[in-house]
Amino acid sequence: MENTYFKSLEKTALGHTVSLVNVLDQLQFNQQGIIPVIAQEQTSGAVLMLAWMNREALEKTLQKGRMCYWSRSRQAFWYKGERSGNIQRLIEMRIDCDGDAVLCLVDQTGPACHTNRPNCFYLRVDGKQVVINSEPVIM
Amino acid sequence: MENTYFKSLEKTALGHTVSLVNVLDQLQFNQQGIIPVIAQEQTSGAVLMLAWMNREALEKTLQKGRMCYWSRSRQAFWYKGERSGNIQRLIEMRIDCDGDAVLCLVDQTGPACHTNRPNCFYLRVDGKQVVINSEPVIM
Repeated sequence: MENTYFKSLEKTALGHTVSLVNVLDQLQFNQQGIIPVIAQEQTSGAVLMLAWMNREALEKTLQKGRMCYWSRSRQAFWYKGERSGNIQRLIEMRIDCDGDAVLCLVDQTGPACHTNRPNCFYLRVDGKQVVINSEPVIM
Repeated sequence: MENTYFKSLEKTALGHTVSLVNVLDQLQFNQQGIIPVIAQEQTSGAVLMLAWMNREALEKTLQKGRMCYWSRSRQAFWYKGERSGNIQRLIEMRIDCDGDAVLCLVDQTGPACHTNRPNCFYLRVDGKQVVINSEPVIM
């Protein structure tokens, strides 16, 4: 979705900086006040999961250096790994051209998926079938 | 968001298959009937963009082997690269554990971002600043 603030950054030179607060003020949270966040493992490049953050979760993530999502089902903050121990350390946060998606490079401890699989994207489309593509890690 | 169909797949053995139609029937489209889709470049592992598909866009993508998104601003199908030529060929589609996100491995022609940058995530958070992290590719 086009946003005039992010549009204005398009012509900005490589290495130029703008204020984080201004960017957060302009982020395109949806009607529920949340934005989709992709967690990608820095070392392997594997896309681990997609979850959601509100502004406060983004700020907590940046402050603590640990991924803190907003649980839509529980309507609560959710520090990834707070129960399982499978935490995600934030290495780098990036925001997209329209300000409506976030990519976080992370250091993942243990499996990222609640099923104990290495990542959440374990259902692979294969023609007219979907194949179970990985199995839970035995801890 | 928990869904009983996807919950039932959690214990399914590696290599087991289920019907694609059943999976599509159970996908967790949001209130606007769309689901977030991550495009990842297969060769480099780079996360290129996040966009949205409705069920028909998913089906078109699978049928044509080319990424077809649903434009929320234009309320129209949008074959990536139809104007720019920077098409995305679908290599593999994966669905996540909750059935509410899709990951597509793609072969990207040219830059993925509408700004002509290689990918859309060109705003990097650096302390209290955000840095412009890449520049448009000169075509």
